[in-house]
Amino acid sequence: MTDRAIPEPEHRGGISRRGMLGLVGAAGAVVGAGAGVAGGVVAARSASATTADAASVHPFFGEHQSGITTPVQDHLHFASFDMMARTTREDLIALLQDWSYAASRMTQGLDVSASGAVGGSPEAPPDDTGEALGLPASSLTITFGFGPTLFDGDAGDRYGIAARRPPELERLPAFLGEDLNPDASGGDLCIQACADDPQVAVHAIRNLSRIAFGRARIRWSQLGFGRTSKTTAAQATPRNLFGFKDGTANILADDAAALDAAVWVSGADQPSWMSGGSYLVARKIAMLIESWDRVRLSEQQNIVGRDKAAGAPLSGGDEFARPDLEKTDAAGAAAIPARSHVRLAHPDSNGGVQILRRGYNFVDGNNDLGRLDAGLFFLSFQRSPAQFVTLQRSLSTDAMNEYIRHVGTGIWAVPPGAAQGSYVGAGLFS
Amino acid sequence: MTDRAIPEPEHRGGISRRGMLGLVGAAGAVVGAGAGVAGGVVAARSASATTADAASVHPFFGEHQSGITTPVQDHLHFASFDMMARTTREDLIALLQDWSYAASRMTQGLDVSASGAVGGSPEAPPDDTGEALGLPASSLTITFGFGPTLFDGDAGDRYGIAARRPPELERLPAFLGEDLNPDASGGDLCIQACADDPQVAVHAIRNLSRIAFGRARIRWSQLGFGRTSKTTAAQATPRNLFGFKDGTANILADDAAALDAAVWVSGADQPSWMSGGSYLVARKIAMLIESWDRVRLSEQQNIVGRDKAAGAPLSGGDEFARPDLEKTDAAGAAAIPARSHVRLAHPDSNGGVQILRRGYNFVDGNNDLGRLDAGLFFLSFQRSPAQFVTLQRSLSTDAMNEYIRHVGTGIWAVPPGAAQGSYVGAGLFS
Repeated sequence: MTDRAIPEPEHRGGISRRGMLGLVGAAGAVVGAGAGVAGGVVAARSASATTADAASVHPFFGEHQSGITTPVQDHLHFASFDMMARTTREDLIALLQDWSYAASRMTQGLDVSASGAVGGSPEAPPDDTGEALGLPASSLTITFGFGPTLFDGDAGDRYGIAARRPPELERLPAFLGEDLNPDASGGDLCIQACADDPQVAVHAIRNLSRIAFGRARIRWSQLGFGRTSKTTAAQATPRNLFGFKDGTANILADDAAALDAAVWVSGADQPSWMSGGSYLVARKIAMLIESWDRVRLSEQQNIVGRDKAAGAPLSGGDEFARPDLEKTDAAGAAAIPARSHVRLAHPDSNGGVQILRRGYNFVDGNNDLGRLDAGLFFLSFQRSPAQFVTLQRSLSTDAMNEYIRHVGTGIWAVPPGAAQGSYVGAGLFS
Repeated sequence: MTDRAIPEPEHRGGISRRGMLGLVGAAGAVVGAGAGVAGGVVAARSASATTADAASVHPFFGEHQSGITTPVQDHLHFASFDMMARTTREDLIALLQDWSYAASRMTQGLDVSASGAVGGSPEAPPDDTGEALGLPASSLTITFGFGPTLFDGDAGDRYGIAARRPPELERLPAFLGEDLNPDASGGDLCIQACADDPQVAVHAIRNLSRIAFGRARIRWSQLGFGRTSKTTAAQATPRNLFGFKDGTANILADDAAALDAAVWVSGADQPSWMSGGSYLVARKIAMLIESWDRVRLSEQQNIVGRDKAAGAPLSGGDEFARPDLEKTDAAGAAAIPARSHVRLAHPDSNGGVQILRRGYNFVDGNNDLGRLDAGLFFLSFQRSPAQFVTLQRSLSTDAMNEYIRHVGTGIWAVPPGAAQGSYVGAGLFS
C-alpha cells in the first residue's frame, strides 16, 4: 500500500491527521482488544449522561442494528453519503470502523472519542464538535446502510465487493406518480440517526460526516420530527401532516414472528453477511397540504379509509379494529372504498405482505407561493425490497396520490448489528 | 364596503367562505361579548389537553405578548408574511382578529375553531388541519410583529397607519460581513411560534397561514431547535452549533428592572399603542461549521472569550462569574482578548446596553459540497432597535466573524399583549 497514489487523509478532506489517527487508533484498540466500549474504559460525556435513565440508552452492538425495532424516537436526522473518488477497500473498511466506534460512543451519550470536545490538547481542534456536551444519550440510535452503488455502479467494483451484492439490492423500479429529484435520491451509504432530542441527532450526523472527510461526503440529508409510526403498543399513534393517525397497524417490536417473517433477512438465498440485517427504503413524499386542506372531511376519510378523529377503519370499531374489507353498506357500496389507502396497503390486499414503517414528518421551509414545503419522510424496513415494491404498486390507484408526490427515493442493505468489538458490515469484508 | 372591488375571500385565496365566516363569526362573538376564550365556552382539543400540566399552557391574553419572557421552549417555527396586493385596512384588522382568536385557542391546546379538525360538517373541509389532534398545548406561544413595510413602503400607506409608525421602526442599517438574501429578509408581519413539540409549532404556523389565505402569505420561514438562550435561572444553558454555551448572561424573566430597562417599550417618545410592547430583531446567521471545527480549542476559546467545557469567562470563575474585562496575564495580555465575542458584546463595552435573546439552532439540509447548511437563527427583543444596532456594530471586529455570515434579517414592532376579548395590535387601529 505504500506506493498508492492516494494522498493521506489530511490532504484529502479536512480532518487533521491527529484527529484521524486518534480515532483510528482508538477504534483499532477496541477492535483489537475486543474489549468494547461498554467495558468502562471511557469517561461519560457529562454527569447527566451517567445519570440518564437506562431506557434512554440503546446498545450499539448486538444481533441487529438499533434504530429498526427501537421504540421510535421523536426526531430524525438522515444522511445519504457518496464515497469520494479514488477511495479504496481499505478506506471503506476504516471508515466503517471509525463510524462504528464513534456511534458506539455517541449512543451512550459520550463524545466521539476519549479526548472528545474539550479533553484533547488545547493546541488542536477537538475531536468532537461539542454541541451535545452535557446532553444525555437521548435514546440515540445510529443505523448504517449500503446502497447498490457501493457494490457496483458507474465506478465499477471499487471495493472488491460486487460479487457479494445481494441480488435484490437494486435501484427501485419506477412507480406511477413519481417526480424524483436525483440529487435527493440514492447514495452509496446511509446513516439514520434517531433521538429524543434533535440536537443529539444532528450532533451525530455532523460528527460522522466530519469523520468521513476525504472518504465520503453527504449527498443529501433530511431532518424529521413527529414520528409517524410506532413500534410498541405503549406508544401513542402519532399523526401525519394530513391530520390522520399513521402507523396504527405497524409491526410491533415484541412480535418476533412478524419481525422474522417481514423484517429480518435470513435464508440460503441471501448473502450470509446480511443474515439478521434488513433492507431500508426511504421515500421523500411531498404532501400538497393546501390542496388536502380544501378536501371535505368525508372525502378525506374515504381517501384514507379511516375516521379522522379516532383513526378507526370505516368498517367500524375502534382504532385497532381490523379493517373489514368485505363490509358493504345497504346500497352495496364498500364501507372501505376501493381506492382508499388503507384497503390498498392492507396485507389482505397484498398476499399478506407487511413492512415495518418508521417515517417522520418534515417541513423544509416554504416555496415561492408562500406554501409550506412539507410532507412525510417515509422509512421502512423489510426482509426483501420486493415487499415494498408490491405495496407501492398496489398504491398506484390510491386516491391519495392526487395529494402527494414522491420526490426522493433510496434503498440500502442494512447489515446486522456489529458484534462487541467489531464494526458494522464486517461480514461483507471477511 | 359593498362597492369595493376586492373579491370575497373565497375567490381570493382558497379558504372556504364557510371556514372564513366561521372563524370571523366566532372571533366576532368573542370580541363583541368580551367573554374571552378562557371562559369555558370551547371544548378541549383532547383529553390530554385538558389534563396537561398547567405549566405547559401560557395565556395568550395579557399585558405583554407571550413568547418573549416565557421560559424558552425547545422548538421554533418562525414565519414572515407579506400582505397580498389590494388588501384594505379592514382586511388587515380582520386578519389580526382571526389570528388572535386562533392563537388564543391553539395556545390552550385547542383546535383553531370550535368545530376544529373533526367537529364540523363532514361535507366541508375542517377548519383545523388536524395534525395536533390529541397533543397537549406543549407550552405553545404565538407572538406577532409588524414590519416597517406594513406602515409604508413601496405600496404606500395602504392601511392608513403610516402616521403611526414608530420612528425607530426602520429597516436595519447595513452591517459589516452581511451577505443578505432579500427573499429571506423583512416582511410586513411576522409570527414566532415556540413550543415543546415541533409538531405543535408547525401546526400553529400552518393554520395561521391557512387563515391568512387571500390576505397575507408566507414570505419566508424557519424551523429551529435546541434553544440557544434561557430566560429563567432554572433552565440549563444550552449550546450553539459552535459547541459553546450560549445565553449564559441573558436577561431573565424575573428581573423586572432589567426588562423595563431593556425590553418593554414605554415613554412619551413612543407611540402609545406600543406601550408594553417590544422590538423583535431576527438574524439568520450561517455558521461555517466545518471551518470552525478545524480551529484549535485554545483559539476557539479566545474567539468566544469563554472556556468551552464550563462556559466560564477566560478571566476565571464559573459559568456565571462576571467577565473581568480588565484582567491581564503576567505578560500584560488581556485574559479576555480584545476581539473576543464576550468582550465586544458585553454591556460594559457598550454603555450598558443589553438585549433579551431567544435564538435557535437550525440545520437546513446540506449544500452541494456535502456540508451541513447550519447556523443560528438569532432572535432578540429590545425596547429600541438602537440597542441591537449598538451591539452589532460593536461586533464588527469580532474574531468570530470569520466563521459566520448574516444571511437573513428582519425587524418588527411587537405590540403589547391583547386584552381579553380584544386582538393583537388593536391599539394601532383605535
